[in-house]
Amino acid sequence: MSTYDAIDVHTHVVPRDFPPYRGLRAGVRWPSMVEGQPCHRHVMLDGAVYRTVSHQCWDTEVRSADMERMGLGMQVLSPMPELLSYWLEGDDGQALARYINESIATLVQAAPRRFAGLGTVPLQDVECAIEELDILLHQFGLAGVELGSNVQGVPIGDARFLPFFQAAERWGAAVFVHALRPCGMERLVGPPVLEQALAFPGEVGLAAASMITGGTLAACPDLRIAFSHGGGTLGLLVPRLRHAWKSFPMLTQAIALDPLDAVRRMYYDTLVYDEATLGYLLATFGAERLLLGSDYPFAIMDADPVARLTALPEPVREAVRHHNARRWLYGTSMPAAATHSLQNPQDGDAP
Amino acid sequence: MSTYDAIDVHTHVVPRDFPPYRGLRAGVRWPSMVEGQPCHRHVMLDGAVYRTVSHQCWDTEVRSADMERMGLGMQVLSPMPELLSYWLEGDDGQALARYINESIATLVQAAPRRFAGLGTVPLQDVECAIEELDILLHQFGLAGVELGSNVQGVPIGDARFLPFFQAAERWGAAVFVHALRPCGMERLVGPPVLEQALAFPGEVGLAAASMITGGTLAACPDLRIAFSHGGGTLGLLVPRLRHAWKSFPMLTQAIALDPLDAVRRMYYDTLVYDEATLGYLLATFGAERLLLGSDYPFAIMDADPVARLTALPEPVREAVRHHNARRWLYGTSMPAAATHSLQNPQDGDAP
Repeated sequence: MSTYDAIDVHTHVVPRDFPPYRGLRAGVRWPSMVEGQPCHRHVMLDGAVYRTVSHQCWDTEVRSADMERMGLGMQVLSPMPELLSYWLEGDDGQALARYINESIATLVQAAPRRFAGLGTVPLQDVECAIEELDILLHQFGLAGVELGSNVQGVPIGDARFLPFFQAAERWGAAVFVHALRPCGMERLVGPPVLEQALAFPGEVGLAAASMITGGTLAACPDLRIAFSHGGGTLGLLVPRLRHAWKSFPMLTQAIALDPLDAVRRMYYDTLVYDEATLGYLLATFGAERLLLGSDYPFAIMDADPVARLTALPEPVREAVRHHNARRWLYGTSMPAAATHSLQNPQDGDAP
Repeated sequence: MSTYDAIDVHTHVVPRDFPPYRGLRAGVRWPSMVEGQPCHRHVMLDGAVYRTVSHQCWDTEVRSADMERMGLGMQVLSPMPELLSYWLEGDDGQALARYINESIATLVQAAPRRFAGLGTVPLQDVECAIEELDILLHQFGLAGVELGSNVQGVPIGDARFLPFFQAAERWGAAVFVHALRPCGMERLVGPPVLEQALAFPGEVGLAAASMITGGTLAACPDLRIAFSHGGGTLGLLVPRLRHAWKSFPMLTQAIALDPLDAVRRMYYDTLVYDEATLGYLLATFGAERLLLGSDYPFAIMDADPVARLTALPEPVREAVRHHNARRWLYGTSMPAAATHSLQNPQDGDAP
C-alpha cells in the first residue's frame, strides 16, 4: 500500500472497450473504441475520433506507478466527461451508464485502498438517474457520481433536477460536477483548445451559482457536492452576487442563503495551476472546502498537484491533501485506516 | 473645485432627451425619452420602458453634489451601455452616436475639471466607427470611447475590429470596455437581475481574453484599454490560460504574449465590492493597472468606492485613486493641476 496520504479527487477513466449498442433506435450516438498507437486507443463518436486516450485511462497498474511518482495515496476515478452522453434517451443513457459504472467498480475493486469511484447517471431522465444512482451506490459500491455542469444546456441548479439531488443527499453520495459543453464558446477567438482553457471556468462557475440561486443547495443542506477547476470563475462571482443579493429585494427573497455562506457549503478542487489563486480560493471558500485535484491523465493536467500545497500552513495543507476529500467522499474525515476498515471490511489490497 | 483627487472611471450618463429618428428606414429600434416620476425619465425602446433613470444621469449639479459626498474629484462619463445600440445600421448608428457624443461633450464642457468624457462609436461598421472616433476626440474633445464587450455577439478581440483599435492607439484614445448582452444567460436560474450579477463578469472576462488570444493587444502595444467590473472573471482565467499556453504548442504559437504579461498591459476598474478580491486583482494585474470605479448612478453601484481602498498601502492607494486613471485617460500620470492646464488651458470651472 502507498505510504502517501494525498487524495486526488479529479482523475478520469475511460473503459478499454465499449459494448455494441443494443437498444432499438437507429443512428444513436454511442461510443466505441478502436486500437491506436501503442498503449493508446481512439474513442470514436459519430464515426470519427473524439479523443485518443492512453492506457492510463483503464490500467490500474500504470495509474499506480504514476501515483507513486506524484506522491498520491488515492485517486478518485470519474468518467471522461464526454462519456456522460446526456444526448441519449433515458433508457439508452442508463444502459451506457450501467456499463461505465460496472467498469469503474471493477477498477476500484482491484485496489480499493488506492481508488474510489464516481459513476455516471442519465440525468437527462431524472427517474432513470435516481434508479441508476441507487445501483451504483448500493450494488457497485461507488462513492458517488460525476455530473456535467449542464444537461443538454440546462444548468444543474434547475428545479427539474432537485429530486435527483435529494436522493444523492439521502444516500450520502459524493457529487463531483465537471465542466461539459461550456457556455461562452461564441466569445472565444483562437484555437479550439480555448474551450478548455477559457470556457470551462465560466461554465463551472455558473453551474455552481445555479445551485445557490435555484435553491437546490438550500433544499439539500447535507448534500456533499464538489466542483472541478477550483469552482471555475465562482470565486470572482461571489462578491458581486453577494452585493446584488444585499441590494435587490428580488434577489434577497429568491435566494435563501447568504451567497458567501452558500459557497462555503460546497467543495472545489485545487486545479488552478497557481499558488496565489489557491490562496484566494482558500480565503473565499474556506480551508475545509478545497480538495486536491489534477485532471489526470489528460494533457492539461497539473503534473505535480501536491507541490502546489507546499506554501500552505500544515493544518490547511493536510486538510486539502486528504481530510477534506475523505469528508466529501464518505461524510467523515476519520483517518484513512479507520475509514477503510469501515468502508471495505474485506479490503484485500496488496501491502 | 473639488478638494478630492479621486477619479471614478466607471460612471454612466443618459441624455435628458433623444432626437427623433431622421433616417430613411422603417421600424428602427431608436431610443426615446418620456417623463417619469419626479426627477426621473423613462428610456423607451420598442415602445416599452427599457429603464427608468434619474436626473443624476444628465444633471451635472446633482452629480457634483454626489461626488462631494463620495469624496470624488472627477467622474469619467460614459453612456449607459444599452445606448451603444450596435443593432443599428452603420449610418443610423453613427447618427445616434453623434448625438450622444455631443451630449457628453456638453456635460464635460460645463465642468471640465470635474468630468472627462468617453463617447460611443458604431463599431458594427468599423469604417463609420473610426470616422466617429476622430470626431469625438478631435472635434468634441472627449478622452476616448466606451465599447461593449461584444458587437452583436462578436467579441471585441475579433480581427475585424483591429483597424478600429489601431486608430484608437494612434490617436491615444482611452478605451473602456463594458459588459453588454452577456453570454451565459442560458445558464442562469433565478430572477432577471442575475444578468448583471452573474453573467456580466464572465462576459467581460472573455472579452478581455479575446484581446489577448485574438492578437489585438500584441498588435497595438500602446493601446490604453480598460475593462469594467474588475475585468470580470479574467483574474481567475489567467492562470489556467497561462498553463494551457505553456502546455499546448498550438496556443504557444497562436498567442504572442505570455498571458500574464498581456493582462498587465490592460486596465481594470475596482468594481468588485470586496477588499480581498481587490487584493487578488492587485496581485494578478499589478498596482498600476487598477482604476477606481463605482457604476454610478445605477442601482448596483458601489456607494463608497474610495473606502474600498482604505486597507491598501499609500503608494498603491494613491495610484488606484487617481494616478492610474490619469495615465489611462491621457497617457501621462502627471499631477492633476499640470495635466489640467495642459488639457484644458481655458478651464473655467467654478472653484
